[in-house]
Amino acid sequence: MPAAGTQPRLCPIADALELLGERWALLAVREMFWGVHRFSDIARNTGAPRDVLTVRLRRLVEAGVLERRQYSERPPRWSYHLTPAGRDLSKVLMAIHEWADLHLPAGDGVERDAVPHGDHRVAPRSRWSCATCGEELAD
Amino acid sequence: MPAAGTQPRLCPIADALELLGERWALLAVREMFWGVHRFSDIARNTGAPRDVLTVRLRRLVEAGVLERRQYSERPPRWSYHLTPAGRDLSKVLMAIHEWADLHLPAGDGVERDAVPHGDHRVAPRSRWSCATCGEELAD
Repeated sequence: MPAAGTQPRLCPIADALELLGERWALLAVREMFWGVHRFSDIARNTGAPRDVLTVRLRRLVEAGVLERRQYSERPPRWSYHLTPAGRDLSKVLMAIHEWADLHLPAGDGVERDAVPHGDHRVAPRSRWSCATCGEELAD
Repeated sequence: MPAAGTQPRLCPIADALELLGERWALLAVREMFWGVHRFSDIARNTGAPRDVLTVRLRRLVEAGVLERRQYSERPPRWSYHLTPAGRDLSKVLMAIHEWADLHLPAGDGVERDAVPHGDHRVAPRSRWSCATCGEELAD
């Protein structure tokens, strides 16, 4: 292991969380997987404050994770859509979903939404390997 | 798909991000996978403001993701360790790592840290299936 330095560790996780590491960004991305693309619908379904959501969506567009499309000129209205990089966030959301299924029980009487998969709700489970050597990574 | 309501969507992802959805929490967990357990080392390696980090670690302890152990009485000093639920966050961190490898190139001349795996740095890649029906989930 490299010696700990005097500066924060540079790592791919830190870079991703710099962009995504605030729940409104990832919850906005979640909405797009549900087919929800309009700002006011994203704000309602996430519960994000509108001013915070505006900033998060702009950063995600600048980073190439989302693209926005104008669907009304007067008044000006935009919808937000996943790019290929944004669609790849499905794995991050599935990993969070998997962890919550295992470790965060829903409150009594609370039914949580999960994306439909055939006649049931999806219950994502992952297997991991190392792309460099191919070895399976143990849980 | 359920009709969009007037309330934020209840889902396992939202519940997990309520706890984890801020980069300092997940970066603190990352440090524990690197074998770093003391508050001041976690603060340095993440770059988290100490007051924010204190609150994040307390919440993670309360949620059963971390446990703290006193290693000095005078002055009182605590170290932070992953519980089984905390260790399962490895998959969330690997999913973020995988996404960053694919979509967030490191800056020129920047070498990012990644956990060693044999003689190389780990490059996690995932395959997903649905625990209910067993079907593989396509990328």
